[in-house]
Amino acid sequence: MEKQEKILIIGAGLCGSLLALRLAQRGYEIDLVEKRPDLRKTDIAAGRSINLAFSNRGIKAMKLVGLEKKALDICIPMNGRMIHNTESETFLSPYSGLEEEYINSISRTDLNALLLDEAEKMPNVTISFNKECKKVNLKEGSAEFQDYNTKEKITKTGSIVIGTDGAGSSLRKSMMEDHGFLFSFSQDYLQHGYKELSILADKNGDFQLYKNALHIWPRGENMVIALPNLDGSFTVTLFLSYEEGEYNFKNLTSAEKVEEYFEKNYPDALKLMPNLAEEFFENPTGPLGTVKCSPWHSYGKTLLMGDAAHAIVPFYGQGMNASFEDVVVFDEILNNHTGDWNETFKRYQKERKKDTDAIADLAIDNFYEMKEHTAAPIFQQKRKLETALEEEFPAEYSSKYRLVTFQEEIGYQEAMQRGRAQDKAMLKLIAEGKISDDISMKEKLKLVKKETQHILENDELTSL
Amino acid sequence: MEKQEKILIIGAGLCGSLLALRLAQRGYEIDLVEKRPDLRKTDIAAGRSINLAFSNRGIKAMKLVGLEKKALDICIPMNGRMIHNTESETFLSPYSGLEEEYINSISRTDLNALLLDEAEKMPNVTISFNKECKKVNLKEGSAEFQDYNTKEKITKTGSIVIGTDGAGSSLRKSMMEDHGFLFSFSQDYLQHGYKELSILADKNGDFQLYKNALHIWPRGENMVIALPNLDGSFTVTLFLSYEEGEYNFKNLTSAEKVEEYFEKNYPDALKLMPNLAEEFFENPTGPLGTVKCSPWHSYGKTLLMGDAAHAIVPFYGQGMNASFEDVVVFDEILNNHTGDWNETFKRYQKERKKDTDAIADLAIDNFYEMKEHTAAPIFQQKRKLETALEEEFPAEYSSKYRLVTFQEEIGYQEAMQRGRAQDKAMLKLIAEGKISDDISMKEKLKLVKKETQHILENDELTSL
Repeated sequence: MEKQEKILIIGAGLCGSLLALRLAQRGYEIDLVEKRPDLRKTDIAAGRSINLAFSNRGIKAMKLVGLEKKALDICIPMNGRMIHNTESETFLSPYSGLEEEYINSISRTDLNALLLDEAEKMPNVTISFNKECKKVNLKEGSAEFQDYNTKEKITKTGSIVIGTDGAGSSLRKSMMEDHGFLFSFSQDYLQHGYKELSILADKNGDFQLYKNALHIWPRGENMVIALPNLDGSFTVTLFLSYEEGEYNFKNLTSAEKVEEYFEKNYPDALKLMPNLAEEFFENPTGPLGTVKCSPWHSYGKTLLMGDAAHAIVPFYGQGMNASFEDVVVFDEILNNHTGDWNETFKRYQKERKKDTDAIADLAIDNFYEMKEHTAAPIFQQKRKLETALEEEFPAEYSSKYRLVTFQEEIGYQEAMQRGRAQDKAMLKLIAEGKISDDISMKEKLKLVKKETQHILENDELTSL
Repeated sequence: MEKQEKILIIGAGLCGSLLALRLAQRGYEIDLVEKRPDLRKTDIAAGRSINLAFSNRGIKAMKLVGLEKKALDICIPMNGRMIHNTESETFLSPYSGLEEEYINSISRTDLNALLLDEAEKMPNVTISFNKECKKVNLKEGSAEFQDYNTKEKITKTGSIVIGTDGAGSSLRKSMMEDHGFLFSFSQDYLQHGYKELSILADKNGDFQLYKNALHIWPRGENMVIALPNLDGSFTVTLFLSYEEGEYNFKNLTSAEKVEEYFEKNYPDALKLMPNLAEEFFENPTGPLGTVKCSPWHSYGKTLLMGDAAHAIVPFYGQGMNASFEDVVVFDEILNNHTGDWNETFKRYQKERKKDTDAIADLAIDNFYEMKEHTAAPIFQQKRKLETALEEEFPAEYSSKYRLVTFQEEIGYQEAMQRGRAQDKAMLKLIAEGKISDDISMKEKLKLVKKETQHILENDELTSL
């Protein structure tokens, strides 16, 4: 049990709630402050990422706070990608060669509510809602909030202040405006935006698409995906260019045009979406951005975590998992905390940043993989070979996807390096015709391993 | 001669002055506004990058405005890097295998003055100094300025506004604060800062180091460089970590400590720097940052150029050359301008941004190359092979450095792709012992070309 220092946490979303709970379990006095109303008591806005892919790194974090079982109880397993082509044919591409490795669809609101409920039970946690952070005094470790209803301004102070206030972080803005240290920062938007839509349950409350998959309609430049919800519906997300191509957010301005676009590209989905046009024009179009920054901390008083430190695009299903893993890593670093927060923050960033940088880049890669490559023959060949290798040699072979998603004992950076080299090796071997049906699986494994090793060594040699 | 539209240019530094001159030559009415006083009439602050490396891309731009000869008249040719080791031994590593290919040391102030003089001669150019841009109205194409002396605020308007106001661009800030479009932005600082120092001429006014070279003292983590000036002095720049390593900007707090550091690492330079400590504590420590952003334009009314659009670190000696090349590219795009500025800005960015992104990355690479690799045996072997190939087969072989610096007909992006593949190929061949004295130069060329081609094809294949 650490001594009862007070920690101010800005933002009670997924990362902030989990962090509050964990730090309270360690004995800290927690003041958790949220801009929005209590999501357990209000309907959240439509069209704002309703469900999430929850996998091993996130599960490990829930285990740390003793909530693994409660979280898994509200999950729908997704065993693979169900690919829909333009002829309305489908095929399942499993996420792993092992049956027990799958990802889960979970409601963002339900998961957040679970964490808030548990945090609230702790005697050393105070939670306030409707209080927007306007500014952080970095050197003092205090923050100014404004109450949404009363407009009253209040100042809160902590031994330290942790900002888990998301991609638009107020703490990060205060760091950016401070000129006492060099602050590296980037925000990068894709040329695509997203729009949330839905496929409702049928009249019996049943799923209208295969339940246990993440559905993808890859169409080269754009794509649609769908994740199942507990009520039998699917949350559908359209990823579409803002301005480029024949159809884009700029020129889809009428119901006819929207339906024409879906009819041409996603005919089987369209049949299940009677409210398409209505939802399309009611729901907002969201941007897809990546945020990186450094340092994550200032003056030994403040620290950024979760999306506030590293917002990523959603294409690896790792945004929430990465933020949850932040809490696990920070918790480990705290085991060696001697009272010097500046030192602790530095150690945390040193341990963690390489991995969040890697998952940000991997998530961008996966955008191209999902919208383009899942439909390409050579990619499908590679994916088939990968899952076959995983099935036959689970201890000796892991695809990039498996390293990132199911091997939480490996950091994202290592997963990226090994995974990318493997991908290169496989594509090269397939393109050169070296993976033929004449050779045994064992020989294929040997070939892939050898070529991967060769690529890794070459990369090292020539990194000079 | 284009019609007499009025163009407001913010910033009369190197890029802004050149742009003003060129657009005036095309017939536009130019309003050029500068924050600082007229540098032809005032002493500029010490310690702010006094001289620059001027090479083919910059020269091409000066040719475009008819000032090539006048610029070359104030240059000092630098034929290669003069490397100084800790034993005070030196050796020259030429920039090219061809004698006629060299870079030039030029005074920033003299070059800027030359451009201002010529711009001022044009009847359709107005230049105002001491007027700081506070804010740009993006949709109107107007900007608010404050006079440094009178504090008076004035607003100026143009058909379009071009921001050539440097790395801290006021126009770019206005774009960042506008929320009418998605603005991708990054500022990335190195862990190193720089400090300008000097080696004066001897009592006869002669150079105390070999005149026609860029001198480098590579020391792994840190380095010192020196460029010659027309008056016999050298401008010396120390690149040192802010906080890391045994000696850094944070702990060099006394004259003794500074001299101790130089005595250990740069003893031959120290002998020529009697005012080292004084200069060290008088001159500011500058940060080394890279800025990228997109879009470079907004609402068909404003455009960023030069450092305002793409600030880079100084290690390739290409900052000014890249900004000058911006003007050349924009000038070419203007040949097809039909009156639709939004379209013209888009075409310019599409043509240009890939190349400025590339030179930004190349400049970071070169930091590592200069401070670490120039001292490494394998790098020196590679460099020797490269210059030998260039000397013997100038039409068939160009090193990365030569592609970037001396082949202005090739864009930076292409130079980067080809150059990086070549570097990889050479290092691999040398490491594998395939470049032996037994084989002819012709065979060496063949080997390098084959391996380079192989790497480029592999990269393409596996970019899926």
